[in-house]
This record gives sequence, C-alpha cells and structure tokens, in this order.
Amino acid sequence: MKLSKIAKTIGGKIFGQDIEVKNIKSILTARAEDLTILLDKLYLKDAQKSKACAIVTFTTEVKPKNGILVKNPRKVLPKLLKLFAYEDKQLGISKTASIDDSVKLGKALFIDDYVRIKEKTVIQDNVKIYSGATIGRNVVIGAGTIIYPNVTIYNNTQIGKNCIIHAGAVLGADGFGFERNEKKEWEKVTQLGKVVIGNDVEIGANSCVDRGAIQDTVIGDGTKIDNLVQIGHNCIVGKHNVFSSMAGLAGSTIVGDYCIWGGQAATAGHLTVGNDVTIMGRSGVTKNIKDNEVIQGFPAQNYKKEWKEQAVLRKWARRQLNKEEKTDEE
Amino acid sequence: MKLSKIAKTIGGKIFGQDIEVKNIKSILTARAEDLTILLDKLYLKDAQKSKACAIVTFTTEVKPKNGILVKNPRKVLPKLLKLFAYEDKQLGISKTASIDDSVKLGKALFIDDYVRIKEKTVIQDNVKIYSGATIGRNVVIGAGTIIYPNVTIYNNTQIGKNCIIHAGAVLGADGFGFERNEKKEWEKVTQLGKVVIGNDVEIGANSCVDRGAIQDTVIGDGTKIDNLVQIGHNCIVGKHNVFSSMAGLAGSTIVGDYCIWGGQAATAGHLTVGNDVTIMGRSGVTKNIKDNEVIQGFPAQNYKKEWKEQAVLRKWARRQLNKEEKTDEE
Amino acid sequence: MKLSKIAKTIGGKIFGQDIEVKNIKSILTARAEDLTILLDKLYLKDAQKSKACAIVTFTTEVKPKNGILVKNPRKVLPKLLKLFAYEDKQLGISKTASIDDSVKLGKALFIDDYVRIKEKTVIQDNVKIYSGATIGRNVVIGAGTIIYPNVTIYNNTQIGKNCIIHAGAVLGADGFGFERNEKKEWEKVTQLGKVVIGNDVEIGANSCVDRGAIQDTVIGDGTKIDNLVQIGHNCIVGKHNVFSSMAGLAGSTIVGDYCIWGGQAATAGHLTVGNDVTIMGRSGVTKNIKDNEVIQGFPAQNYKKEWKEQAVLRKWARRQLNKEEKTDEE
Repeated sequence: MKLSKIAKTIGGKIFGQDIEVKNIKSILTARAEDLTILLDKLYLKDAQKSKACAIVTFTTEVKPKNGILVKNPRKVLPKLLKLFAYEDKQLGISKTASIDDSVKLGKALFIDDYVRIKEKTVIQDNVKIYSGATIGRNVVIGAGTIIYPNVTIYNNTQIGKNCIIHAGAVLGADGFGFERNEKKEWEKVTQLGKVVIGNDVEIGANSCVDRGAIQDTVIGDGTKIDNLVQIGHNCIVGKHNVFSSMAGLAGSTIVGDYCIWGGQAATAGHLTVGNDVTIMGRSGVTKNIKDNEVIQGFPAQNYKKEWKEQAVLRKWARRQLNKEEKTDEE
Repeated sequence: MKLSKIAKTIGGKIFGQDIEVKNIKSILTARAEDLTILLDKLYLKDAQKSKACAIVTFTTEVKPKNGILVKNPRKVLPKLLKLFAYEDKQLGISKTASIDDSVKLGKALFIDDYVRIKEKTVIQDNVKIYSGATIGRNVVIGAGTIIYPNVTIYNNTQIGKNCIIHAGAVLGADGFGFERNEKKEWEKVTQLGKVVIGNDVEIGANSCVDRGAIQDTVIGDGTKIDNLVQIGHNCIVGKHNVFSSMAGLAGSTIVGDYCIWGGQAATAGHLTVGNDVTIMGRSGVTKNIKDNEVIQGFPAQNYKKEWKEQAVLRKWARRQLNKEEKTDEE
Repeated sequence: MKLSKIAKTIGGKIFGQDIEVKNIKSILTARAEDLTILLDKLYLKDAQKSKACAIVTFTTEVKPKNGILVKNPRKVLPKLLKLFAYEDKQLGISKTASIDDSVKLGKALFIDDYVRIKEKTVIQDNVKIYSGATIGRNVVIGAGTIIYPNVTIYNNTQIGKNCIIHAGAVLGADGFGFERNEKKEWEKVTQLGKVVIGNDVEIGANSCVDRGAIQDTVIGDGTKIDNLVQIGHNCIVGKHNVFSSMAGLAGSTIVGDYCIWGGQAATAGHLTVGNDVTIMGRSGVTKNIKDNEVIQGFPAQNYKKEWKEQAVLRKWARRQLNKEEKTDEE
C-alpha cells in the first residue's frame, strides 16, 4: 500500500517519498518493509531508532525519512488500522449448522459449523456467526453483527446492527434473583425479562449480560464492553459508554451516556449514574452519581477529594512511623 | 391469566375486579394488559403512574384499581413469576449429540445438538442439556438438572438434582497447583480430586469451580452462585450460601451454611468461614470468620468497626485539608 | 502401587512395610486402602487420626505406620501425584471434527467431536483438542499441547509446546481499543497484532488474552495463569510468572520473569514490572515496579510500608473511637 493511498484515507501531508508499505507495526517491532506510528512524544526516542521505512507522526524528528504528518496520530488510528484489517469474506451457511425451520435468515450470511439457532429467531443481512455459538429462540440479530465462537445467546435476546460479540460472552442468562424462605433457603425468582442490545455495541470475551426479572436489561447504542465484565439484571445502560475489563454493575443500576468505567470498577445495585461520568479503576460506587463527576475510591467520591484525603492520611502515617523509628533508635 | 388464579397460588386478597392479565412487568414498563408488582414503598410514586391494569401490592394507594393485596410482595415473587415462566418442553436426544455407548441415560431427557457426553457418565431422568455443552467421562448429572449451552464439565464431576448450570460455566478444571523447583520454574501438581455439587445448586454464566488436588471441591445443597465467580480447589462450601458476581474463594477454604458473599468479595486460601456469615461487597477476608459475623473491608473485620474507623479517619483528613486550605488563603 | 515403586520416583526412605496403596487422598478423606501425605506440621494432629494405610511424611509421629519419609513433602507433590494421574489415551480425529483441507496435522493427535479448525493452521504432534474448541486460521499449536472443551483461539495465535489451555479460555479476541470522535462516540481501532504463547504455559478456565493492536501480546515460557484472568492487548509477559485467579493486566504492560500475582491483583496500563516481583492479592499497581519488590495495597507499595501505615492509621482510629465512647459514657 502506497503512502499516498493511506494519506487519502487518514488525511495529513506526506513527507519523504511516496513509498509502498507492507504492514503497520509498533515503533520497536516494525521491520524495514513496515509503516509505524508515533502516538506520543514519550516514544520519540524509540522513534529515532525504528527500523520502519515510513511513519505516521506529528513531527519529522524521527528516523524513518518517509511518512505522513498529521496533527494527532491517535485520532487517525481507527481509519489507519482499518486499512490493514483482515476481512473474513466467507459466506454461506454450513451444512452442519443446526437452524430451526422457523428461523428467518437474511442475505449474505456466514454461519459456520456447529452453530445452533432455535425457533422463530431472526438473523438479519450480513451477519456472521462463528462455530459453536448457540442462539436461542425468538432472538433478533441485527444486520452486520458478528457473533464469535462459543457465544451463548439465551431466548428472546435482541441485538442491534453492527455489533461485535466476542467469544464466550453470555447474553441473557438468568439474573441472580432469589428470595429467602422461612427455612433460610433461597427460592429462585424466575427471570422473565430479556436482554436488549443497541447498535454498534461491542461485548468482550467471556462477559455476561443477565436478563431482567420483570423488565429488560438494556445496553444502549455504541457502548463498548471489555472482557470479563458483569452487567446484572434490570440494568439500563445508555449510549457510548465504556466498561473496562472486570468492571461490574450489580442489578437495577441505571447508567446515562458517555460514561467510562475503569478496570474492576463496580457499583452496588439500584443506583443511578448520570451522563459523562468517569469511574476510575477499582472504584466501588455506593450512591447515585451526578453528571460529569470523576470519582474514585471505595466508597467512591470525587477523585480529587479522594486523592487528597488519602495523601494527608498517608503523610501523617509516615511521619508517625518516622517518629516511632527515631524513638526506637534513641 | 385471571387474578383469582394467581391469588390461589401466591395467597393474598383480590381487590377491584378479577380481570385477566397477559404478562407481569415492572411498574414503569407495564402496558395496559399487564400485571405489575409494588415491592417497596420507594416505588409508591411510580405505582401511582403505572399503566398496568392490575398490581400485586401491600397498599391499595396505587393507580391500578385491580390487584392482589399481600403482606410482603417480595416474598411472593418466586411463586408469582413462576406462573409466567416459559417452559421448554423439548424432549428427546438429538441425532447430532455424541454420546458414548457406555453412558447411562435416564428418562424424559432433552439433549440438544452437538452435545458431547463421554464414557461411563450417568444422566438421570428429566435432565436438559443444551447445545455445545461437553460432559466428561464418569460424570453424574442428577435428575432434573439443566445444563445450558457451552458449559464444560470435566471428568468425574458429580452434580446433584435440580441444579441449573448456566452457559459457559466450567466445573472441574484443574485446581491451580504448582510447586517451584530449584530452577524457579513451576511444576504442575496433578489435580486428582473432583468437583461434587449438591442438589438445587445454581451456578452462573462463566463461573468456575476447580477440581481438588487430593480431595474434592464440594458445593453444598441449595447454594447459589452468580456469574464470573471463582471457587478454588479443595474448597468445601456448605448449604444455602449465596455468592454474588465476581466473588472468589482461593483454595482450601471451608465455608459453613447460610453465608452471603457480596460482589467481588474474596478470601485468601486455607481459611474457615462459619455459618450465617455476611461478607459485604469488595471485602477481602484474610482470617477465619466466626458464625453470624457481618464483615467488610480489606482486611475484612466487623462492618461496624470498619465503617466507624473509616469515618473517623476521613473526618480527620477532611478537617486537616480544610485547615490547610484556610492557611493557604491567609 | 507399592510404596517401593513410589519411593523410587519421589525419593525418600520407606518405613514400616512395603505395602500396596490404591489412591492418594488428603489426610482426613483417605480410606484404609489409600496413601496420604503430611504437608505441614499444622496438620500433624489430623495425621494422628488418619485412616490411610500409608503416608508420605517428614516425621514418623503419625498414625499410618507405613510410608515414605522425605525432607519436604511439598516438593515431591508434582512427581507423587503424577503417578496417580488418569491419562487420556484417546487418539484419532473425530469424523465430526471440521478441519479445513489446508490445515497441517501432526502425528498422534486426538481431535474430538465438533472441533473446528480453519485454514492454514498447524497442529503439531501429540496435541489433544477437546470437543467444542474452535481454532481460527493461521494458528500454530505446538507439540503436546492440550486444548480443553469450548476454548476459542482466534486467527494467527501461536501457542508453544506442552501448554494446557483450560475450558472456555479465549486467546486472541480483539484488544479493547477505541478512539473517541468529535461526536463523543467510540470508534473501533482494528486490532492487527496476534497472541504469542510460549512453551509450558497453562491458562485457566474462562481466562482471556487479547490480541495486540499493532504489536503482539506475548506470554513467556512456563507462565501459569489461573481462571478468569485478563491479559490486555500489547502486554509482554516474561517467563515463569504466576497469575492467580481474577488478576488483570491492563494494556501494554511489560512484566519480567518469576513474578507472582495474587488473586484480583491488577495493574494500570503502560507499566513495567521487573523480575521476581510479588504483587499481593487485591493490589492495584499504578506505577513501574523494580526487581524483587513485594508490594501491596492500592496504590501498591512495599508491603511492609503498606502494612505499617495501615496499622498506625487503624491504631489511631481505634484509640480515637475509644475516647469518643468514653466521652459518651461520662
């Protein structure tokens, strides 16, 4: 691929020669035939050692003498890397896929071996379903969605268009609902709700979204969920949120739009989180959170307050320990 | 379904007319043909706006003018929602299920496509096994148990009656046992124990229960395990416990009966936890816990002590920060 | 198996008679026909009650009057338990396995039912792949490796020799890479890297190792990963590390050799962790860590500092609370 072709897609100005590149690799793993990219001045030193023949960069003070100058290399990443993507062009429905006669199948599908699709389910156009995935009854899978291997989608789940569901994810398993009886035993509360996933949602490997009890669990358009995330029953999650790995929402949490959840961050149940909220990694949210808050800690609070309080406590503790050490020495 | 039929099952007294309802939905998602339920006076305002035609409630001060008056609506949930449950009546054994000739099959089974069952395994009556589940050799699956898609059950595992194992769960993978040799490398300790699951146990999606090293990992009757939970090797877990999502037991933990584990709560290995213990969310247990304790924090301790200590520390820190701010201003 | 045969394998000196044992079981679960093992003097009392007919022990002050005396019983565990291991001797390729014609198959393979292997993949000698596993295109699986049921291996992944990949694990799913556009929506950054796993690596049930963005995610030789662990994209993990259950590495973390991660321990992204580092359970690592450090807490620091600081703070808080209580009483 020529730099001029790439520049046409990502914007920016070519410097050096309009050479051909084979792959795109990171600064230190790139070989002579590769393009690389400088994302941050932190890596400027590395960029002065790169073996790449060309670079996407915000400065020409780098070793590769050919490349594309852009204002913010990070911003062009989606378009740039897509140029080098492997596209799976397989089409057709495997003879070993087991699809109930009542299933409605769209056009241009790829359904791989050992896929199971049950009664009354609708698979819209251009969907890809990989081997071992199981799709329950009465499910809708929107156009252009990709279901990776060994995914399980329980009955009645609705998935929007252009979603990506990674391997091992489970959508629509029973919410965790039990009531204790007079013998202190837990009686199951049948979970009658379903899971509704919007458009352009990505769900990571082995993540779980549980079905609701008497309402649906909802994930809004454009929300991206990493691996091993838990979304409990009855949660209503808005649009364009990000859930990092191992984040968890207990049941009946309502989340607005444009929120960011750090790794292992979790909320107690029945809370409301506003729009544009950032919950930093490992935080434990125990109360409702207003719009635009950035919170941390457990119980989570404004991150600056949290940091300052932690700092003042630790400072005191260290001074105290220093005093005790001195007393010991005397 | 008529209200009178429902009242017969759940108890309580009908008010308004004995009308027909179609589904049960939450207060705000119910439509004109639906029954709803008021679980808590927190939702009383919502219940005065509900479109439902009927309500299960503890007070008649609600908008739906027909319904069933019960003392504690939460307590009737198991019976009430079960009335509306979809029951999968499929029976029979798929031609594409691969079942070894030595497997003992009970009556009234449903075994779906691409299920694999290996040598000498026993499948008791009324078991349902969904597609993609793999059952190892010498396994016992008790009567009435449901195994959802893509579950993996390793060799020798024993599962009791009326259990529910959700999609992607893994029972009987090797416990995490290694010894370091003189080259600082980790040598595998073969895990010879098995997993033994009691009756009426529910195990959530993508949860893991590891096999023991030289004894069995045991989960007692009636214990309910949410999604993405880890139970390490050699653990002996008693009856009627609840493990919320992302909880974890390191190896060789002994847990009594009627305990509750909050989300992301975890224990170090080789500990003993008594009966009726509550371990609040995100707690890290580092020592043995006596009966009836309610604990929190890391290291976890009595939750009141934990809360008071945290409060007194934070109060001091805030006062300190206020002082510093004032000094800055002066 | 005779004690003399066992002693030949594990070393040590026989005492009592050279009797035959049937199984090896833990001290309290062993029956009259079993061998047991005393791992620690903590269990000495139990060992004086064991029903086992023989014992591997460091002292003869135990009830079983026959056995093998060794210096450190824990060190012989790998060899000892391997003697009693069940070995799956199945060979051959199931007719229901779906293997592309371009796949290169080694010798002495076991490939079970409903395994899917795609184009150009290489399966070396003595590999076992259990039912429901899906292997993408252009993958390499090294000699002697075992892939348990329902594992998903994405395109281009490379796995070394003698690895064990437990059920439900996912290798090579897309790293979690998105850029926010001017509409505050998240645009996917195609993940072009692959996953490269060394030799003798074990990966636990339902764990995830993501593919890199423009470089590979690498797990070094001999590293052992427990269940439900997350390794983010671009991570480079060295040799002979141990990751306990629910540990997580955010993206682009570099880890040396011989490190130990406790349960639920996690790192922020773009960090470097040295060699021989121990990260205690539940720790949150927020900065680079030097060789030989033992760290704990969040933000994680030297574990002794962490413990002392926590202790001095708690001591102060308790004294304060005691004072307040006394004041209340007066």
